[in-house]
Amino acid sequence: MQHTSTKLMSTSAVSLIELVLPLDNVRVIDMTQVVSGPICTTLLGDFGADVIKVESPRGDELRYWSPGKSGLSGDFVGVNRNKRSIIIDLKEQAGKDLVYKLVEISDVFVENYRPGAMERLGFGYEKISSINPRIVYCSISGFGQTGPYTARPAYDPIIQAMSGLISMTGEKDRPPVKVALGVYDLFGGFFATIAILSALYLRNKTGRGTWLDISLLDVAVQTMTYYAGRYLASGTLPVRSGLAHAAAAPPNGGFLTKDGKYVMVSAHNDKHWQAFCHIINKPELLTDQRFSALRTRNLHKQELLDILEPVFLQKTRDEWVKLFLDAGVPCGPVYTLDETLADPQVIHRQMVQEIDRNPYGKFRILVNPAKSSDPIWSLRLPPPFGGEHTQVILKDLLRLSDEEISSLMSKRIVADRITE
Amino acid sequence: MQHTSTKLMSTSAVSLIELVLPLDNVRVIDMTQVVSGPICTTLLGDFGADVIKVESPRGDELRYWSPGKSGLSGDFVGVNRNKRSIIIDLKEQAGKDLVYKLVEISDVFVENYRPGAMERLGFGYEKISSINPRIVYCSISGFGQTGPYTARPAYDPIIQAMSGLISMTGEKDRPPVKVALGVYDLFGGFFATIAILSALYLRNKTGRGTWLDISLLDVAVQTMTYYAGRYLASGTLPVRSGLAHAAAAPPNGGFLTKDGKYVMVSAHNDKHWQAFCHIINKPELLTDQRFSALRTRNLHKQELLDILEPVFLQKTRDEWVKLFLDAGVPCGPVYTLDETLADPQVIHRQMVQEIDRNPYGKFRILVNPAKSSDPIWSLRLPPPFGGEHTQVILKDLLRLSDEEISSLMSKRIVADRITE
Repeated sequence: MQHTSTKLMSTSAVSLIELVLPLDNVRVIDMTQVVSGPICTTLLGDFGADVIKVESPRGDELRYWSPGKSGLSGDFVGVNRNKRSIIIDLKEQAGKDLVYKLVEISDVFVENYRPGAMERLGFGYEKISSINPRIVYCSISGFGQTGPYTARPAYDPIIQAMSGLISMTGEKDRPPVKVALGVYDLFGGFFATIAILSALYLRNKTGRGTWLDISLLDVAVQTMTYYAGRYLASGTLPVRSGLAHAAAAPPNGGFLTKDGKYVMVSAHNDKHWQAFCHIINKPELLTDQRFSALRTRNLHKQELLDILEPVFLQKTRDEWVKLFLDAGVPCGPVYTLDETLADPQVIHRQMVQEIDRNPYGKFRILVNPAKSSDPIWSLRLPPPFGGEHTQVILKDLLRLSDEEISSLMSKRIVADRITE
Repeated sequence: MQHTSTKLMSTSAVSLIELVLPLDNVRVIDMTQVVSGPICTTLLGDFGADVIKVESPRGDELRYWSPGKSGLSGDFVGVNRNKRSIIIDLKEQAGKDLVYKLVEISDVFVENYRPGAMERLGFGYEKISSINPRIVYCSISGFGQTGPYTARPAYDPIIQAMSGLISMTGEKDRPPVKVALGVYDLFGGFFATIAILSALYLRNKTGRGTWLDISLLDVAVQTMTYYAGRYLASGTLPVRSGLAHAAAAPPNGGFLTKDGKYVMVSAHNDKHWQAFCHIINKPELLTDQRFSALRTRNLHKQELLDILEPVFLQKTRDEWVKLFLDAGVPCGPVYTLDETLADPQVIHRQMVQEIDRNPYGKFRILVNPAKSSDPIWSLRLPPPFGGEHTQVILKDLLRLSDEEISSLMSKRIVADRITE
């Protein structure tokens, strides 16, 4: 399989390539900040949409969550590529009017403020759709636009807590733990992207836009999939099991090795169990009636773990990985993130690409994971400085004259850099 | 905001409602099983696609992963709705020919086998696209169709391990822990849905389909977003911090309370910190120079935790939640999954709906989290029995005669129930 988009990327990462991209006739007004909204609009931008990130004079707060050059913090570049930035003071009427003009020529409006905030600013769905009835308006919030908790503040850890995910993650007989990554900000952003693409399809049939109400808690509940299915069918709740698979017989989980690193092994089924016992040089386990069948291994989990754990301490993580893979036993190293990004497969797949961000030199950023036999996305634009595209957007999209732009700048209605 | 689709659902969940849905002109051949593929095709089905799940005579193995009636295990119903099931013996040429006929009248082909398996069965991209060049063919695999690890077996825990997620999740000074939920199976399925929708857009412009190569590890790397951004910018790696936020000053994390349950509080910023100190009746902390500013709280994290942890033991989880929310302090209960599904907000949002599955009575299943001012999805079909739609698909879609169908059945090329 050829990866055309990847090949193009490697030769000319940020030049404007003449490609037909899926969404190159879609314009997105991006009124989002932090994570859940920006990852959504980044994905839309990857697939070709013209994403206009509207920032306040202070800029997206994520620009300051970690060290970075001129507002390009590591956090910010991690979820903002393929978008342009315009700074508008939304508290001023002249600033609101600029947004309304952008709405006239746009297809999608995405916001992730607390419910009600957009209405108070003059950008609620009714107002926006009265200007452009074809617009797909997507609201992303912690709990949704309706219901008893709609006004509650929400951060990803609170959604993780209320989804049940935290209660089931952690070691047995120890406190629960939070997932280190803000998975529901990300699941929410991914799902908003799906909903927006679907609503654009619907618009192509009906001629009308719609108001999408994406709740991070709803999405989190959806991710409970098989756990919810089991609970609703039989009342069974997931239990904390540390590094191990909660249900399957050992070996199915992570084990500490000689060099203090962990290896993840999934060798519960009979075929892999047999190969596994030969690799660890314990063929006698295969004839031990406690462990000879999947069912009996399940009945003697702890006894089996007591035998296996010392064995894993005899070799290093990477020695085990090589031995198991050579024998066809599913396994992998438990990596730290630096190891992940240096892994040969991740490098082969070109998940990190280098871009120039003058005058600050080169940045390495993550890119879209879609690979295809035809180009379906490209890295066209690096993470923007705040207000980097203010002038070009006002001039080329809104057709303002140089004098009008100067006037807006001097009145601080717009800005081409972060000023506060 | 009205939720039209939800309202329709509550009156008549499984009857065929005459709606215009985004994907109601899209047909999907679903050659997937277990989780990553089935959640993708379920989402496509939610938005209106006609999803034809092709099962072997034994059926999707997820049908047996937990107790259930006639192959409708809790696991299976958790990721299989809005699709029809046909059982075909794909090892027989006559069975392959039926798939080829379905390909002629379909738009999307999704598979999540190990790379190479589809080619060996006669369903590789070249073959399928030679029959229908407009088809969007999506392969979901652990490591992708290219690169040094393409042939490796993969399960979600191995992808979690290699993504870095496990290394950063868990308690400080304790072993790392796996996320209890198969998050990368699910992220992979969500992302495949995004890529398929984008490729369908492209097809509408070019007239050609494409081959999508979705790697769970690529998607996992993409989810590293801000952590990857920070590491690539400054070499900083995330560290395990249990129930707490890894970076922000306390209180930002989970605390054990009087009834043995945990409460999640995010009160790191000054405004919430002030409200928080009044609620816990410790206003003296506000004037303690160690804790008076966000910066100083960050320098004295452990001292602050040592003061706060005993305080949380004075009231129950739900007492704290009420007190904090009344004061505007972001917080939420750490729920077990049964509590999640019984929560008033989750009930209000109708994330669980009841359907009839004769002759086995009523099932409660999770539904799509998209809410909209217009119907963009509906619950049209309950999770299917294996082969439930074999006859109707052969008759209505492939226009086979009753005699032809009987012949295929008697030769066991197709079946209308699971037989092995």
